[in-house]
Amino acid sequence: MLGGAAVHFSLAASFFTEVRPVGPVGDDFGPEQFAVLENRGVLTDDVERVAGGQSFFWRGRYEYDLNVAHTEDTQLGVFGEFEPKLSEAAKCADTLFLANIQPDLQRQVRAQCGDASFSGLDSMNLWIETAKDSLLAAIGEVDCLVVNDAEIRMLTGESNLARAARAVMDLGPRAVVAKQGEYGAALFTADGFFALPGFPLEDVRDPTGAGDSFAGGFFGYLDGLDGPADEGELRRAMGYGTVLASFNVEEFGTERVARLTREEIDERFEALRRMTQFDALPA
Amino acid sequence: MLGGAAVHFSLAASFFTEVRPVGPVGDDFGPEQFAVLENRGVLTDDVERVAGGQSFFWRGRYEYDLNVAHTEDTQLGVFGEFEPKLSEAAKCADTLFLANIQPDLQRQVRAQCGDASFSGLDSMNLWIETAKDSLLAAIGEVDCLVVNDAEIRMLTGESNLARAARAVMDLGPRAVVAKQGEYGAALFTADGFFALPGFPLEDVRDPTGAGDSFAGGFFGYLDGLDGPADEGELRRAMGYGTVLASFNVEEFGTERVARLTREEIDERFEALRRMTQFDALPA
Repeated sequence: MLGGAAVHFSLAASFFTEVRPVGPVGDDFGPEQFAVLENRGVLTDDVERVAGGQSFFWRGRYEYDLNVAHTEDTQLGVFGEFEPKLSEAAKCADTLFLANIQPDLQRQVRAQCGDASFSGLDSMNLWIETAKDSLLAAIGEVDCLVVNDAEIRMLTGESNLARAARAVMDLGPRAVVAKQGEYGAALFTADGFFALPGFPLEDVRDPTGAGDSFAGGFFGYLDGLDGPADEGELRRAMGYGTVLASFNVEEFGTERVARLTREEIDERFEALRRMTQFDALPA
Repeated sequence: MLGGAAVHFSLAASFFTEVRPVGPVGDDFGPEQFAVLENRGVLTDDVERVAGGQSFFWRGRYEYDLNVAHTEDTQLGVFGEFEPKLSEAAKCADTLFLANIQPDLQRQVRAQCGDASFSGLDSMNLWIETAKDSLLAAIGEVDCLVVNDAEIRMLTGESNLARAARAVMDLGPRAVVAKQGEYGAALFTADGFFALPGFPLEDVRDPTGAGDSFAGGFFGYLDGLDGPADEGELRRAMGYGTVLASFNVEEFGTERVARLTREEIDERFEALRRMTQFDALPA
């Protein structure tokens, strides 16, 4: 079914700002798939249609507690030959998110978006193993790394997460987000540490795309701001990322987020805030 | 070195209230070990000295990220023949914590403490596998279950943690605390959900006893209150549990907590509060 990092990210971010995904699709990505994006106002001009091609494909299964995914099949399809060529509109983006892909490609896109005032990057164990130098260079060119906590450890060779996050910040980024599956996400910056649990749900159907929906809520919220992405706003962005991820997993693929409303998002954001507050002791 | 659930719990709770551990020790538990407890004001009258016996002994190792413990050796020692006989003072306890042990023993102690207005229980996979009926009965007799999240799933046969916690509450407890290692801990009650991350530390030496120190901070704080353990106080208790666990892991055994001060605890409690707060959107 419809999925992929760019799709999940774009739908999640679309509640906060104008989104323009860049990437290739094959013949299997037709009007029905475009409609899911366009119904949410996502701008699809930079989606490259490759005639005769097949879209990237992934199939996997999850352990019983849904925390561990096992890949059963990956087909690169049109991503195998992809060379990103951004439109002028895409090149002017204020906020740039480089979804998980070969880091040379991420760097090519980053180089074309010189004006971005806030940029982020996701990656995975495969690139740490096979393209580490390029990945480290790519990380050095963004403001915020958003990856799984195990990947931060693997990337830095540092088992302690706080130290590992500091090692990443030494490469350049001013913020590091450690995604932790059902346990939520943690934010490391020079100013400190912040963490949120996953939003508790009694019905989780499909965790696929949760991390991309998190990133979409996070970067989408920040892009929609008038002011800078300061510590307080990064924390709110963590909240929106958590909320979008939580809706994503309630149903399969894009089903839930495609019919979501901003009102539902803000209600859950406030519920999450109430779930994480506790009072100081009386003075 | 010195350890064990009762020791870690008692030291952590001693910062908030009078603590009276109940349990047997052997000849290897001498004046030096008693002094660690008594220096923190812990009342040791109910510690039963078994002449010629050996104290409970555990040895294990941890995976590189310190999240998974592997047991290498367990020797029950004097616990093999233990029959809890509580002093009158112990029987009058307002707050009772049943540390992890065979659930029949937990029930014997629970039965002797009829006045306890707030009681809690820890357990482990071994008792779920070998004494499940007794454990379910023991859980039905306490107000609060405090176990690892994987154990809540295992106990209830429910992979979703929120549903699993509800299934535990259906057995009797009004609160369920899911310990999640470095990810922190989550609290489920009829009123809602609350979660805290583990306090971030760049130097973690020894996670042994972290869960017991958490429980000590949690139940110790609640016992020290004048008022009831309502939702707001349960949340603060989660904060103190998190803080005590974080000090525990900074050094080996009881080393760090033995020389801790209430001032250090309250400073870290407030730091934790700042690390978990985010602002509502402007109205």
